[in-house]
Amino acid sequence: MSRLIEALNRLPGIGRRSAERIVFYLLKSPLEETLELGELLKNVRSEARFCKRCRNFSDAEFCSVCEDPARDGGVLCVVVDPKDVMAMEKTGAYHGLYHVLLGNLSPLEGIGPEELQVAHLIRRVKEEKFREVILATNPNTEGETTALYLAEVLKPYGAKVSRLARGIPVGSAVEFMDPATLQRALEGRQSFV
Amino acid sequence: MSRLIEALNRLPGIGRRSAERIVFYLLKSPLEETLELGELLKNVRSEARFCKRCRNFSDAEFCSVCEDPARDGGVLCVVVDPKDVMAMEKTGAYHGLYHVLLGNLSPLEGIGPEELQVAHLIRRVKEEKFREVILATNPNTEGETTALYLAEVLKPYGAKVSRLARGIPVGSAVEFMDPATLQRALEGRQSFV
Repeated sequence: MSRLIEALNRLPGIGRRSAERIVFYLLKSPLEETLELGELLKNVRSEARFCKRCRNFSDAEFCSVCEDPARDGGVLCVVVDPKDVMAMEKTGAYHGLYHVLLGNLSPLEGIGPEELQVAHLIRRVKEEKFREVILATNPNTEGETTALYLAEVLKPYGAKVSRLARGIPVGSAVEFMDPATLQRALEGRQSFV
Repeated sequence: MSRLIEALNRLPGIGRRSAERIVFYLLKSPLEETLELGELLKNVRSEARFCKRCRNFSDAEFCSVCEDPARDGGVLCVVVDPKDVMAMEKTGAYHGLYHVLLGNLSPLEGIGPEELQVAHLIRRVKEEKFREVILATNPNTEGETTALYLAEVLKPYGAKVSRLARGIPVGSAVEFMDPATLQRALEGRQSFV
């Protein structure tokens, strides 16, 4: 019992008192509930894995996006994290495929192209012949470094390489924007047609 | 004295106690200081006015931007408020002229093209023959309505009409963006060259 309390206590947001309360709750609750939780916990690591093709979270060998025949196989969106896939999917406006880097380039922290498996991305771009690769890294120092590097190494493979627009968020206002964002919004201005 | 306290009390952010403290401070400070403040207050309304050409705040007939011969007279940035001129100037990246609408179109509040003096804007676009007119209204409902209306009425005059990019602010992250902003960032994506 004390080992379970310690194990629970190691989880983020669960203090020693909470851990104890959880164990006492489990001891009084129906047996099945506890057994099911144990089973789920044991299986989560073996069942959840990264999609073999795009490295998004997946329950199977390939993720639901990669398996969906309705997606446009000609466009690839490169993101840093599976959370970014979720954010892009919520727009309902993106119909292409993804590639998840699982991190940013960060020479200072020793994260180089090998750690991000950039070779795997290049292989995909070469083999799947995308019309366009959209780099959806974050507009901060790490994200910019990653995007500029990827734009450079992907150049020889014929796909158009683009990035998400930096600018004023919908619902916000010119007067509240920092100068750097406003400058990007100015540079990225779009014509009315 | 009590009338001055009341008058000060009417200003935003100055409560009755603050007003009293200001009056007691003035009574003890050098006479010239009080006289100068009185003079400045009396003159602010007669001296501060709107630039005759762009309706930005100005101390003279024309504002400092309009009077600056180094500005690019071929580009016009249309903003809603003089505060937006200040925000754009802080970027250091805009070198053209401005036109201040002093409000958004808002049919519900009875603010139509006449109230915003759209005719004055059209006259400028006609006479000053800008290469480009950048609509820098805010990306909210009112600002969008205003921009779409202006893009339509300015169409016949030959200038390219554009708008500021909507997207992810510099330093922010994909996962924190609302779907509408992310959709705009996707639509407005830019190519690497």
